[in-house]
Amino acid sequence: MSETSSRARELDAADELAAVRAKFVLDSVVYLDGNSLGALPAAVPGRMEDVVRRQWGSLRIRSWEESGWWTAPERIGDRIAPLVGAAPGQIVVGDSTSVNVFKALVAAVRLAAEGGPGRDEILVDATTFPTDGYIAGSAARMTGCTLRPVTPAEVPGVLTGRTAAVLLNHVDYRTGRLHDLPGLTAAVHAAGAVAVWDLCHSAGALPVGLDEHGVDLAVGCTYKYLNGGPGAPAYLYVRRDLQDRFDSPLPGWNSHAEPFGMRTEYTPATGAPRGRVGTPDILSMLALEAALEVWDGISIDAVRAKSLALTDFFLECVAAHVPEGAVESLSPKAHAERGSQVALRCPDAGDVMKRLIENGVVGDFRPPDVLRFGFTPLYVGFADVERAARVLAETLA
Amino acid sequence: MSETSSRARELDAADELAAVRAKFVLDSVVYLDGNSLGALPAAVPGRMEDVVRRQWGSLRIRSWEESGWWTAPERIGDRIAPLVGAAPGQIVVGDSTSVNVFKALVAAVRLAAEGGPGRDEILVDATTFPTDGYIAGSAARMTGCTLRPVTPAEVPGVLTGRTAAVLLNHVDYRTGRLHDLPGLTAAVHAAGAVAVWDLCHSAGALPVGLDEHGVDLAVGCTYKYLNGGPGAPAYLYVRRDLQDRFDSPLPGWNSHAEPFGMRTEYTPATGAPRGRVGTPDILSMLALEAALEVWDGISIDAVRAKSLALTDFFLECVAAHVPEGAVESLSPKAHAERGSQVALRCPDAGDVMKRLIENGVVGDFRPPDVLRFGFTPLYVGFADVERAARVLAETLA
Repeated sequence: MSETSSRARELDAADELAAVRAKFVLDSVVYLDGNSLGALPAAVPGRMEDVVRRQWGSLRIRSWEESGWWTAPERIGDRIAPLVGAAPGQIVVGDSTSVNVFKALVAAVRLAAEGGPGRDEILVDATTFPTDGYIAGSAARMTGCTLRPVTPAEVPGVLTGRTAAVLLNHVDYRTGRLHDLPGLTAAVHAAGAVAVWDLCHSAGALPVGLDEHGVDLAVGCTYKYLNGGPGAPAYLYVRRDLQDRFDSPLPGWNSHAEPFGMRTEYTPATGAPRGRVGTPDILSMLALEAALEVWDGISIDAVRAKSLALTDFFLECVAAHVPEGAVESLSPKAHAERGSQVALRCPDAGDVMKRLIENGVVGDFRPPDVLRFGFTPLYVGFADVERAARVLAETLA
Repeated sequence: MSETSSRARELDAADELAAVRAKFVLDSVVYLDGNSLGALPAAVPGRMEDVVRRQWGSLRIRSWEESGWWTAPERIGDRIAPLVGAAPGQIVVGDSTSVNVFKALVAAVRLAAEGGPGRDEILVDATTFPTDGYIAGSAARMTGCTLRPVTPAEVPGVLTGRTAAVLLNHVDYRTGRLHDLPGLTAAVHAAGAVAVWDLCHSAGALPVGLDEHGVDLAVGCTYKYLNGGPGAPAYLYVRRDLQDRFDSPLPGWNSHAEPFGMRTEYTPATGAPRGRVGTPDILSMLALEAALEVWDGISIDAVRAKSLALTDFFLECVAAHVPEGAVESLSPKAHAERGSQVALRCPDAGDVMKRLIENGVVGDFRPPDVLRFGFTPLYVGFADVERAARVLAETLA
């Protein structure tokens, strides 16, 4: 037995989250793409069967009340809340991440305008997942702002009295770099601007501390580390003391103070429901609710500790097995700067990933030259990690 | 046997759509709320099981290609297209109706602006389902327009060179009145403005003829007469010759010409996918796809004929059994003005509906005083209609 495989055994034996893997439907594949689509939690199929056959099929329209469909967006938001360090009543689930970025950013510009005129610039992470940039461009266009792409490191230096809002990613989708949410949020606030964070690549993998760090608005998807299923609805966080001033560009009937009053005049709801828009997509939403049950009794700090151990060990195994110079890690070495993924740059990365998948190791390819491996601490073990590195070495040989 | 019950027998015996009922999961309840939430098509539970267990659970990320997840919004749009009289390639499924109203209306104002300056007014149906009005208000605010609520009948008289866009409902959600889509669209066009139609209460119940009547943009939900399930994704129609000029306020990564290119610059896709935004909610979307299979081989003209026969017969049975003056129909008598529902005004309507439901007849209550009964020709029969009128009579007695 090689050194890395005996290390893997030891690490697996000591893993306090090892038993959580049984809450997922998995097979012999080493699945390192949970940062794109989380694996299926075992509770979901049975729940969906009930939702479809009994709640929809038998109760039909009555389920809006009797099966709790109507209140699902807030209820499921409260289930996500502890995972991102938010007290209850501040998160609502629904719509896609893109749509929530639009709500959050337009609302942020409107909040900033309350402080006085002249705030007409939106800063956006220049290395962001593209949709955030596109939507930020539309939000800027529709609010009369200028959009300025900057790297997160540049943000403190370019904040001015003109800055209205800053849209940042907690973890970079490509490199896996973890940005300094507390420090950047404080810098944005010091400049009198509003901070909007995209948590897609951090929620469920590491502590976020939304309340603790005074984040204004945040959005995130639920189909990566939260395992909510393909295209599961996203969420929106609006800090409690901002909720009464949250002025949504998408004031649908679901966000009305009295949605069934069928009023001609719009009166926004109080609290998190103000972030709702139209009728929630119940099937996707209740699959997510069942998926979130795997988090019962799990500490996000334990998840973070294992995540770092997994990525450390992967880098160690890559160093041990892959010929020097064949790949280059784009992911930061420092724990404080690392998310829950490792991005390796190599020639012909698209082709390499194809062969890895054929050999039972699933990550993904991000153009032009990146192999991306995500490590979901709830179901990835150290032996998986070691095998992935070995298969990578064989593939590159 | 009373006259109405023998008539019901005859009508059921002659009903060429009677066999379609077997494609749904139904029970002894008379379900007249399919205009709020369509009944469960029998094909859905098995499909969902496959989507959850095999496509998500086993194939995981590979399903975006192998299970056709990525192209579902356009593919399912093409399945809806014949039901609303649209050639393929013009409808995309995704997001809620409210979000699609926002896309359509902002895009409509931008289209109108191409014709020259000064078009700064949006007309909206004053009796619209509230969300359309709220969203229209936001679209007006964000495009520098004024919002003017008018009844559909008033539209031709108030169209001017200032009119940018007109948002109308094909069928009024409350009264069931069918508006003159061909005539109003022609009037809007004659004024140089853009017509946006909301088909929530007509699609699947009667012919719409989007292409034939030159409608510019349209939106609709899929959980009423299309039986897609609670909160199933809505759709957006953009007429083919307008697609290259469709300028979405929600340009998410899914509407990019090369979504996996991860480009910083936004280049919109061609065709219907330009109306996409973020990652589609696959579970809800594929439930809808299975639900649409009930339409195989069904002519929307036959559906319309039965719909009118059902509502005629319901009014006839109400007249026969309910004491004169106890209820007043708000729904137009003329076929040309009637959708697929009947709205009856009566005192204590909320209470009356509660008792109807307890007695196995499910409609819904719309404040302040309306009993609303929807007739889905695919699964409602004439005996159901007769029973509903009798139970109503007993309840009011």
